[in-house]
Amino acid sequence: MNLTTLLSEMTLAEKIGQLVQLTPNFFEEGAGEITGPLQELGLTQENLFQIGSVLGTHTKEQVIQIQQAYLAKSRLKIPLMFMADVVHGYETIFPVPLALASSWNPELVKEMASLSGHEASDAGIQVTFSPMVDLVRDARWGRVMESTGEDPYLNSLLAAAFVKGYQGEQAELETNYQKIAACVKHFIGYGAAEGGRDYNTVDISTINLYQYYLPSFKAAIDAGVKLVMTSFNTINGIPASGNQWLMKTVLRERLGFNQVLISDWAAIWELIPHGVAPDLRKAAQLALEAGVDIDMMTPAYQKSLAELLTADDISEDLIDQAVLRVLQLKADLGLFHDPYRGLLSEDRRELLYPEIAAASRRIASQSMVLLKNEQEVLPLQMTQKVGLVGPFATSQDVLGAWSWIGDTAKSVTLAAGLKASLPDLPVVGTDDRVNFTAQEREQMVTLAKAVDRLIVALGESSEETGEAASKANIALPASQIRLLKELYAVNQNIVVVLFNGRPLELSEVFAHSQGVLEAWFPGSEAGNAIADVLLGRVNPSGKLTMSFPEKVGQVPIYYNQLRTGRPLTVENQDQKYISRYMDVSNDPLLPFGYGLSYTNFEWSVTQSSQNLSENQAITFEVKIKNTGRYSGKETIQCYVKTLFAEVARPQRELKQFVQVALEAGAEKTVTLRITPADLAYVHSDLESRTDKGEYHVYLGNSSLAPKVGEIYFQ
Amino acid sequence: MNLTTLLSEMTLAEKIGQLVQLTPNFFEEGAGEITGPLQELGLTQENLFQIGSVLGTHTKEQVIQIQQAYLAKSRLKIPLMFMADVVHGYETIFPVPLALASSWNPELVKEMASLSGHEASDAGIQVTFSPMVDLVRDARWGRVMESTGEDPYLNSLLAAAFVKGYQGEQAELETNYQKIAACVKHFIGYGAAEGGRDYNTVDISTINLYQYYLPSFKAAIDAGVKLVMTSFNTINGIPASGNQWLMKTVLRERLGFNQVLISDWAAIWELIPHGVAPDLRKAAQLALEAGVDIDMMTPAYQKSLAELLTADDISEDLIDQAVLRVLQLKADLGLFHDPYRGLLSEDRRELLYPEIAAASRRIASQSMVLLKNEQEVLPLQMTQKVGLVGPFATSQDVLGAWSWIGDTAKSVTLAAGLKASLPDLPVVGTDDRVNFTAQEREQMVTLAKAVDRLIVALGESSEETGEAASKANIALPASQIRLLKELYAVNQNIVVVLFNGRPLELSEVFAHSQGVLEAWFPGSEAGNAIADVLLGRVNPSGKLTMSFPEKVGQVPIYYNQLRTGRPLTVENQDQKYISRYMDVSNDPLLPFGYGLSYTNFEWSVTQSSQNLSENQAITFEVKIKNTGRYSGKETIQCYVKTLFAEVARPQRELKQFVQVALEAGAEKTVTLRITPADLAYVHSDLESRTDKGEYHVYLGNSSLAPKVGEIYFQ
Repeated sequence: MNLTTLLSEMTLAEKIGQLVQLTPNFFEEGAGEITGPLQELGLTQENLFQIGSVLGTHTKEQVIQIQQAYLAKSRLKIPLMFMADVVHGYETIFPVPLALASSWNPELVKEMASLSGHEASDAGIQVTFSPMVDLVRDARWGRVMESTGEDPYLNSLLAAAFVKGYQGEQAELETNYQKIAACVKHFIGYGAAEGGRDYNTVDISTINLYQYYLPSFKAAIDAGVKLVMTSFNTINGIPASGNQWLMKTVLRERLGFNQVLISDWAAIWELIPHGVAPDLRKAAQLALEAGVDIDMMTPAYQKSLAELLTADDISEDLIDQAVLRVLQLKADLGLFHDPYRGLLSEDRRELLYPEIAAASRRIASQSMVLLKNEQEVLPLQMTQKVGLVGPFATSQDVLGAWSWIGDTAKSVTLAAGLKASLPDLPVVGTDDRVNFTAQEREQMVTLAKAVDRLIVALGESSEETGEAASKANIALPASQIRLLKELYAVNQNIVVVLFNGRPLELSEVFAHSQGVLEAWFPGSEAGNAIADVLLGRVNPSGKLTMSFPEKVGQVPIYYNQLRTGRPLTVENQDQKYISRYMDVSNDPLLPFGYGLSYTNFEWSVTQSSQNLSENQAITFEVKIKNTGRYSGKETIQCYVKTLFAEVARPQRELKQFVQVALEAGAEKTVTLRITPADLAYVHSDLESRTDKGEYHVYLGNSSLAPKVGEIYFQ
Repeated sequence: MNLTTLLSEMTLAEKIGQLVQLTPNFFEEGAGEITGPLQELGLTQENLFQIGSVLGTHTKEQVIQIQQAYLAKSRLKIPLMFMADVVHGYETIFPVPLALASSWNPELVKEMASLSGHEASDAGIQVTFSPMVDLVRDARWGRVMESTGEDPYLNSLLAAAFVKGYQGEQAELETNYQKIAACVKHFIGYGAAEGGRDYNTVDISTINLYQYYLPSFKAAIDAGVKLVMTSFNTINGIPASGNQWLMKTVLRERLGFNQVLISDWAAIWELIPHGVAPDLRKAAQLALEAGVDIDMMTPAYQKSLAELLTADDISEDLIDQAVLRVLQLKADLGLFHDPYRGLLSEDRRELLYPEIAAASRRIASQSMVLLKNEQEVLPLQMTQKVGLVGPFATSQDVLGAWSWIGDTAKSVTLAAGLKASLPDLPVVGTDDRVNFTAQEREQMVTLAKAVDRLIVALGESSEETGEAASKANIALPASQIRLLKELYAVNQNIVVVLFNGRPLELSEVFAHSQGVLEAWFPGSEAGNAIADVLLGRVNPSGKLTMSFPEKVGQVPIYYNQLRTGRPLTVENQDQKYISRYMDVSNDPLLPFGYGLSYTNFEWSVTQSSQNLSENQAITFEVKIKNTGRYSGKETIQCYVKTLFAEVARPQRELKQFVQVALEAGAEKTVTLRITPADLAYVHSDLESRTDKGEYHVYLGNSSLAPKVGEIYFQ
């Protein structure tokens, strides 16, 4: 298919259609008459069959039906492209991205993306609006559950893993219909919403944008991501979807992205409420001039591009470039060969539930983070009498937000998961997540008194994180804390299992439990995966990728903060004029990188040399031994501090990490390698390079890792 | 005095000395031997008598003694310059700046600055490190008490008022020794400390820096301010004290400031912990190259400038320019005529306490904000039986931070102030501000039962706001809330008087009182001023200049926020995908501009025209009537919304206001005037200009003012 030739055959209306994306209802309900929504979007019946893409279909049958009807009426037979939010699974739900990230395992993320992409492709989905790679530092923002956390390096590795999982290798997408195109989002800065309030204003200096927010997008683009989505927020005062500097200078030129840029839902229209466009026409102009190729669900392009062209306010060349990028994506997806990407083929191997469910269970167990484990309260021993209580004991609300197609009714509850191994497990759940009846409370307390180990399942509902789910208070409901205290008063051998999608204030939970397992929203196999961990079939190895504040009043809080001119140190604790709060610590309750294991590891470090040069990397050999009673996995994290730089630099930054799985008693040597490129940073001229100078290296199993050496780059 | 000639006679050491500022102890203890501190600062005995300025003397005698000893040993007899933190009074303390700002009265601020400058000048102070004009949006930051609030326009008016009050007219400073030079601080962005944690990282885009943070500095500079102080924080990744772009391009070029730039305390040395200088030498180089003229209390300039010059790492011209600016300031202060600025003269008229105390009392009463007044619980009537309780009932901790010389032991307590009019007033104070004894509680409850009106004095201590006094929790202590609830249970006719320097979470206070008076830290005459208001001798007229959040989880919160693409409106309350929190309102508990009166005002507005042009301003005539029973003062506030602009603009912005004092029943017509210049904003090219277009105008007595008209600028 010669796309330039195809373009030359297209009418202006056909070109514009390629730049518009609609929901399926337009094609289903609108077949035959111009309905309200069609009219609102400025669509005629003819236009409808010139539209370029659809978002949010649910089934294979729906996709086939819409594509068939469309191609029957479309003049040039350019197939529709089908997109959807496949964020952490399609029908089978995996842990939420913040949980996936806690695995610190790009291979696991890649596997998740590959499987959920396959399952989505079975339902006709060709493009997913994933991964979200926004840097996040504020637990109030509901969408942190969709992120991979506060570290640019880890975010970058995982961004690439998502993209490769969904898309496979570059050439693969065109022929392997189990692969789908990925769309990295949200370009850029969405995670820095002021006050943690979704869609709120963002203000980031350009150097910090380049330093901390760009890397994960660069990684996704370098991994070949097919689409980029605009963010809702302003950058330098101008909303991203109409920000020429951002999209041309930064995205297209600096990052070299030359594929499809799609607006977020209604974001082009939102240039009006943002106050930078008086009307739809100007909104369309700003977006097209910024290089936004696809207008998601607004009438802006459909209604205004022709008019803008006639008035000479935009050039047709801009439209042509956008159309070519859309057509190229369709070609890359193989749509010109098979508009159904194999859906009609009898050979198509659909992913079967048992296979993907097993993976979901395994991945979920790898994503959980053991936050506390006093007196080896975990893992549970088969000789112990165990009970399970709490609002999440029998709850199927375990999928988390962004699991549209996932069926809550099929999800495995914690009670069901544990009962598979402990058939006689006594369980008292609650009807409501917040309000408990007197009878429920009484039954829970009675059960607490009768058991050796009490599992208390607490948390936030799926609706409390995700898009438009920001909260000013990030503690658990007071009723859950009251319940926990009542239970703890009669039995201290409590293990709290947490279901949630954001860092929470956990001081009260810690004070009234022996063990705490952060289960996140584990997905379809939740109960089975948690049972695997509680019963010791899986030794937890997750590590937090967002700091858990002690109090919401500390946010934004993150490990890689700048040092300030008056840093709090061990030595100056008694001084007043130091950067700190009077009433709480500067530190989070739980730091980035933190997570316990049922076993213990000891290690020693040998540094190859202190002298780093362009030709000579420095290696750190870590001899690590599992000194505990369980086999397990540890994540050795390597942080670096740049002593002196042209611009202020973080206290420390994650530069490398390695995961080591060891049987009890076994030992192994692993190597971490630091090169000059690892030490590069963005200077005030906005260019990234490495300075000669001194660096300190910290190695350990959290961001509190001790200093192990120095590096001199000469 | 020809300063260029003087400069040509100076040795390099003498030049460098002019750029160094020390505390008085160096001159007092160091007379005769090289002590530890002298050595640390790289000072020889000879150097000491080359030093340019001193900060923090306390008395006239001290200044005379230091100056005499200095001049006796100084080769060129260039007088020392004496600086101090005169922030809201010197010996006689006025309300804290956040309170002063609540008066919305630049004349009052000017009067305060004039009087406290006079009193400070009587003690030999020649320069004050005031005003602080940092824009603040986060109540956690302890230093909000030293600011004038969240609005750039009001901050600008008050910045100019401070400067004119301290300095008088330009030429006046040289001959009128009651005037002192002002130093505007902190350039720039200090108020945006991340997480509200003092000295923490700041990140602001350049356009927002210009749009919201520069105006108050511009106003101070336009008013002739003699000094600017650097801020501790980074801007675009580089600490202000070593940031060439900031100090040269923005401060010197854009704002046209050509006088003395002084570092904040130790800020040049702090370039090292910030990580942008490996040592003192580099720190000194960065600061001098940025154009910082005076190094406050670090060895950087003293130890390194000569060495840097020898190594050709800086030019002597840079030193000469800095020295000339310092010498010019000394000349402007008349120091070459009289190094004692009249201290030795018998004609000098010192300010007497009764005069300044009366002003402090009057200004304090004008600074208080009546937050709640149900069922006319206030003013107190002489026929009522009144009682006073609470931890601030008899507390002399009423001065607030930054009142070094103010004597707490002489400050008037609320009990004393009320007893002057109500000699039989029953009072139960507490020994501690947080922990109350059982006996204290019992006495307070007993008293509560016995009176018609109970005044409950609550608050934070002076140390809980100010520098290095940031808090993650901004509620009153739980013990104070418990006390209030106990009292409210037995007597609902409660008036809470609040002593504090920051916006607090007040929901519980509101729920357990009929009246709430925000007294702030009123200063030396606190009790008298509060009594004036409670007893109705002064009708409160203050208006908040910082939003009071409902919950700390809402911060930063401010009325002039950008609109976002998904603003919450009256119409979309039921929709999910809107910018808001799930668990609290988007709104503060108390908005910017809010404050009640004992009387009521009604008004009507007449707009001159809708068509604004370069030659034709638009006026709003407000016919306002006092319809209540007390004479009083109202502040009519005019806000404007720019409907469409090149960059996102605030929901509304304060553009004008006018204060009207009216006897009960009286009426008056006042005029507000909008010109094109009022509507200018900073565009993406960083230039400020006014766009043609539509504007909405809101008039009222808070930032919730209703829309009254439209303006079309053509």
